[in-house]
Amino acid sequence: MKKFINDVDNLLAESLSGFQAAHRDLVKVHLDPNFVTRAEKPKNKVALISGGGSGHEPLHTGFVGYGMLDAACPGHVFTSPTPDQMLAAAEAVESGQGVLFIVKNYAGDVMNFEMAAEMLPFEHATVITSDDVAVENSTYTTGRRGVAGTVIVEKVVGSLAETGASLAECKALGDKVNSRTASMGVALTSCTVPAAGRPTFELAEDELEMGVGIHGEPGRRREKLRPADEIVADLVTAILHDLKPAPGSEVLLMVNGFTGTPLMELYVLFNAAAKLLEQQELKVVRSLVGDYTTSLEMAGASITVCLLDDEIRKHWDAPVHTAALRWGR
Amino acid sequence: MKKFINDVDNLLAESLSGFQAAHRDLVKVHLDPNFVTRAEKPKNKVALISGGGSGHEPLHTGFVGYGMLDAACPGHVFTSPTPDQMLAAAEAVESGQGVLFIVKNYAGDVMNFEMAAEMLPFEHATVITSDDVAVENSTYTTGRRGVAGTVIVEKVVGSLAETGASLAECKALGDKVNSRTASMGVALTSCTVPAAGRPTFELAEDELEMGVGIHGEPGRRREKLRPADEIVADLVTAILHDLKPAPGSEVLLMVNGFTGTPLMELYVLFNAAAKLLEQQELKVVRSLVGDYTTSLEMAGASITVCLLDDEIRKHWDAPVHTAALRWGR
Repeated sequence: MKKFINDVDNLLAESLSGFQAAHRDLVKVHLDPNFVTRAEKPKNKVALISGGGSGHEPLHTGFVGYGMLDAACPGHVFTSPTPDQMLAAAEAVESGQGVLFIVKNYAGDVMNFEMAAEMLPFEHATVITSDDVAVENSTYTTGRRGVAGTVIVEKVVGSLAETGASLAECKALGDKVNSRTASMGVALTSCTVPAAGRPTFELAEDELEMGVGIHGEPGRRREKLRPADEIVADLVTAILHDLKPAPGSEVLLMVNGFTGTPLMELYVLFNAAAKLLEQQELKVVRSLVGDYTTSLEMAGASITVCLLDDEIRKHWDAPVHTAALRWGR
Repeated sequence: MKKFINDVDNLLAESLSGFQAAHRDLVKVHLDPNFVTRAEKPKNKVALISGGGSGHEPLHTGFVGYGMLDAACPGHVFTSPTPDQMLAAAEAVESGQGVLFIVKNYAGDVMNFEMAAEMLPFEHATVITSDDVAVENSTYTTGRRGVAGTVIVEKVVGSLAETGASLAECKALGDKVNSRTASMGVALTSCTVPAAGRPTFELAEDELEMGVGIHGEPGRRREKLRPADEIVADLVTAILHDLKPAPGSEVLLMVNGFTGTPLMELYVLFNAAAKLLEQQELKVVRSLVGDYTTSLEMAGASITVCLLDDEIRKHWDAPVHTAALRWGR
């Protein structure tokens, strides 16, 4: 295992301390329990809180800031955060309008956020993301997995929350975006959980895992490496089979790297995916390309399509000011 | 070799087409000869043009846009662009105030930009970046290599150029930033040039290359993997030995990933480096953490320190609107 670490047990705390040191203007990192809030607490808005295992950065800590999350609760690598983290985060950021949890659909995360919700002394609701069309049920889920589409949910609901919208309105928009968003990924290599010290799975030099999960969970099938266009065609076909968009629909196309794939190749994937969508008479009017929901050092990528409407597009375009997404102010 | 490609010979063109499709609002990609310009040609400013081999994305194409470059000329992977690209780019973006080339110090790039400069029908100057303190002279250079510090040069001079500053002023600021910026990198794995099909160098499972170049060139020494803090201490020591900053100096600290290193680990490096700088009574007042000057899929990272002054800080903070760096508007 080759990683830049000092001590596996201290990896998360050191990484969060570095995140704090790099982004003092944006965030405040709280240790023990671990959670990240904005540097300045906003007033009189629904508090958006997300969280999940570490190893997917910038998700979720990199999305704390104006126009997106109020707080994020990072667990240890690929391990759910615990209810005490969510409760402490909620106490720190709630400002009288209630708390919306945004949770990727993994059994551990869902259970722990539910436990926190039951103890929460505030009005609350939860949006569970489940954009991964690769498999129904899986290693760590009942139902579909929540993956990179979660970034879009957090951005869009984050913008709405800044307008002073109610908890019910934020919850409704989050569910809507999730229902209009579909993703699927492919791995070229495994990743290595630091505490385990060896690769999560093995792929031969000529193999890929189609439909892989962001923790290296199995996808639809193990298959031989193929040209990028063929890989993308399978991903896009699965996504459109799920979304069934009407011709002429406007979409946001996201190509998300898992870490180990060069940006040059992510744009090859974007090129292929955009052409396929246009062949289906879809209009690619918004884009996001880069590493936004990663799987430690895994080489691979996912494609996400979000069906826009006026409301979603407006909130996607609205200003955001976080460590990992920033535009408009 | 596991990569998302269709045809090695078409990789650059497909990647640039994807870049165009994703960022139509920001850039215009020109093929054959290959160069990238802003979507809208600015008027009456010094035209900033950079370029170099591909495989380092987002450098340089990702930095074309308001507040940074006017054009970038990508060569094939790890191969210098040719003078026809630079001439075509200059013809497209020159707006009466001359052309400033920003060139990383590699023999092929320097030679080709010099040839273009000689043929250029415009007033022109060149800033050569040489921030890598690892080695004097190397596989592809006479003198020091230009690496991730180039991003800072392009950002700072890019801001100055927007103010209507003269060619001489832009050249002088570029040289100043370069002289106040030092970098050094470390590789945990090699990278594979697509056309070669096999790793550029071999590292054993317990080895790292200290002082590696961004094409996988040898650095100072091959050594055993060590804790992150020790690796960072060596990098920071080499950088400060070069810069010799006065106590109390304000610095920009950049931790740049080469692609294959998780963001979580880049923040571990930032944490260690920031502590060391503070122990030297330096003030880390600006930061940049992420993949900005990459080496295909290499796992590894570099540390860059730029000694700020009021002028450099002001231009670093100024608005920028590119695919890879965006803030302030």
